[in-house]
Amino acid sequence: MTHDLIRDAPGPQPRRPSRQILVGRVPIGGGAPVTVQSMTNTDTRDARETLRQVGQLAEAGADLVRVAVPDAQAVRALGEICSGSDVPIVADIHFDHRLALGAIAAGAAKVRINPGNLGRARYVEEVASAATRAGVPLRVGVNAGSLPAEIIESAGVTPEGMVQAALDQVRILERVGFEDLVISLKASNVAVTVRANELMAGRVDYPLHLGVTEAGSFARGSVKSAVGLGYLLGRGIGDTLRVSLTGDPVDEVRVALGILSAWGLRQSGPEIISCPTCGRCRVDLLRIVDEVERSVEGVRAPIKIAVMGCEVNGPGEARDADVGLACGRGVGLLMREGKVLKKVSEEDMVEELVALVEAYLASQP
Amino acid sequence: MTHDLIRDAPGPQPRRPSRQILVGRVPIGGGAPVTVQSMTNTDTRDARETLRQVGQLAEAGADLVRVAVPDAQAVRALGEICSGSDVPIVADIHFDHRLALGAIAAGAAKVRINPGNLGRARYVEEVASAATRAGVPLRVGVNAGSLPAEIIESAGVTPEGMVQAALDQVRILERVGFEDLVISLKASNVAVTVRANELMAGRVDYPLHLGVTEAGSFARGSVKSAVGLGYLLGRGIGDTLRVSLTGDPVDEVRVALGILSAWGLRQSGPEIISCPTCGRCRVDLLRIVDEVERSVEGVRAPIKIAVMGCEVNGPGEARDADVGLACGRGVGLLMREGKVLKKVSEEDMVEELVALVEAYLASQP
Repeated sequence: MTHDLIRDAPGPQPRRPSRQILVGRVPIGGGAPVTVQSMTNTDTRDARETLRQVGQLAEAGADLVRVAVPDAQAVRALGEICSGSDVPIVADIHFDHRLALGAIAAGAAKVRINPGNLGRARYVEEVASAATRAGVPLRVGVNAGSLPAEIIESAGVTPEGMVQAALDQVRILERVGFEDLVISLKASNVAVTVRANELMAGRVDYPLHLGVTEAGSFARGSVKSAVGLGYLLGRGIGDTLRVSLTGDPVDEVRVALGILSAWGLRQSGPEIISCPTCGRCRVDLLRIVDEVERSVEGVRAPIKIAVMGCEVNGPGEARDADVGLACGRGVGLLMREGKVLKKVSEEDMVEELVALVEAYLASQP
Repeated sequence: MTHDLIRDAPGPQPRRPSRQILVGRVPIGGGAPVTVQSMTNTDTRDARETLRQVGQLAEAGADLVRVAVPDAQAVRALGEICSGSDVPIVADIHFDHRLALGAIAAGAAKVRINPGNLGRARYVEEVASAATRAGVPLRVGVNAGSLPAEIIESAGVTPEGMVQAALDQVRILERVGFEDLVISLKASNVAVTVRANELMAGRVDYPLHLGVTEAGSFARGSVKSAVGLGYLLGRGIGDTLRVSLTGDPVDEVRVALGILSAWGLRQSGPEIISCPTCGRCRVDLLRIVDEVERSVEGVRAPIKIAVMGCEVNGPGEARDADVGLACGRGVGLLMREGKVLKKVSEEDMVEELVALVEAYLASQP
């Protein structure tokens, strides 16, 4: 019973209603599942290397992958990247509208631009009409670190200033009839990011792309992003997200999926719950958890696995999982859907648990 | 100007008003800074090993450290641990009220009990009156994994069931006049943990101890805790927190501090913001960030350091930091409080930035 009851857990706040756009075949907003993005850090001009990384990111669970397109040579590589990728490719463009036009022609499924730095209004119009013809949405928005000088003068580097700057970009495109938009408002400060997105969520119905910029190294950055993005998602805000970490972008995807699955917004593969070891623990739990994690790495189906170190919280928590192991001194209780199956010795624990995981998954429809 | 404006960033929601309790000299609730706890995973009966770990946790920034006290031998070691520790020690007791009495006599600054599993009402009264005499607060509360059977029957393993079970414990102590309490409501499910604490926050004014139980390994667990605890803190809820991770408890403290500093609720040492490298990056940013992080590891003073990989967002973000480095191809701009100081070559970047950090810190009051 416990098992079923905890399944009816409350979720985050209801999702903010938004219009839906399509990035290739991937919908964003309008009730679609929150999508995960990352960005390659290869040299885009090296199509093969970039495609290899796009593949790794897709394999890890990215729904979209963004690539920087800094010059004409990158535009040329983009065609090969777009046609070779299983996931839609987003082109990241700055300063030069010809790169945006080239990216759309090359097959980019979405283009991120800053209309404010493309130069003349005519250039923005050209990009918008090419995007309209190709059915390619645009992402616009601001980073707190690069607000226009006139906004800094009038509103400051504040959430309100960020919203004004982003809305200025939105208005430029709306004036030429373009509304196939996603908006992003990013800052390295979590509270600023949160507040800017809350303000924007109340003003427009475009989908919102969430991110905390320059979040830092893996350990620091994943926590900072999880706080900021997790908070917004908990408030029902956010339609697609990118976690920014310095390092391997595959980690960005893993952290993003972790944030979504913490709220039950997405489940990718096994959820392993394990206790912090304490003075009550009489087995080498860290080793056991590590071994279990590695053994189920390839599993994509959702399954909740509990690995608990003692008799105080162990059986209760293991009861809530699909399969569980509650360890005592040198022995463990192997459990399935709340029922104790048998006692296992410490040396057989991992093998027995992994076998049980496989049996459980095989029995699912 | 940017520099000052971003300092006036919004924070989380106003803190929920709560009464204040004192754990040794450390206040919890009533507007006190949110405190960080962790728990040793040594054998408590080995006082020396346990004290060594308590020291590591305090050094990492823990305000309180909890130790499991599973038997009389652990109670004996507890005296030595309490008198040898720089931070207040919390004793974690289950099943046997004599261990709670012993822990109070041994100098525990707070005792975590579950009145429901201490047996007779008389035992709970004995613990409460010993705690009153010693000025020792008690933590009560529930883990979703170990709710009493009658609550599971009536309310289920739900946030409401958890609140009822915890309030049952609170009432037992209030009936004997004991109100020196902290309440915890933990589950391995983030949404359940969040909702249970939101409900409790509206019902009582006792301080709340936050935690997501059995959060898992470092990478998974830190994200899950950051989402759940970060959300509650963002809503103004929570007076002390413990991040549960399977592994070295020092990581628990680091993650907890990361969650608090993401909201600006605590600043411990340098905040390093760095960009995710992308196809625009022409320096080995990961290496540079790693080296900078290691070089400033010992710094306790708050300082915001930006290490940016390119000319698009780099100068803007670096401008908002106390000191910053915006890299281009083989060179970087060294910045202090928004002003460019000089160009530095890639090979001298780390050394120059660390020197600037030291100069900046030396110039602060």
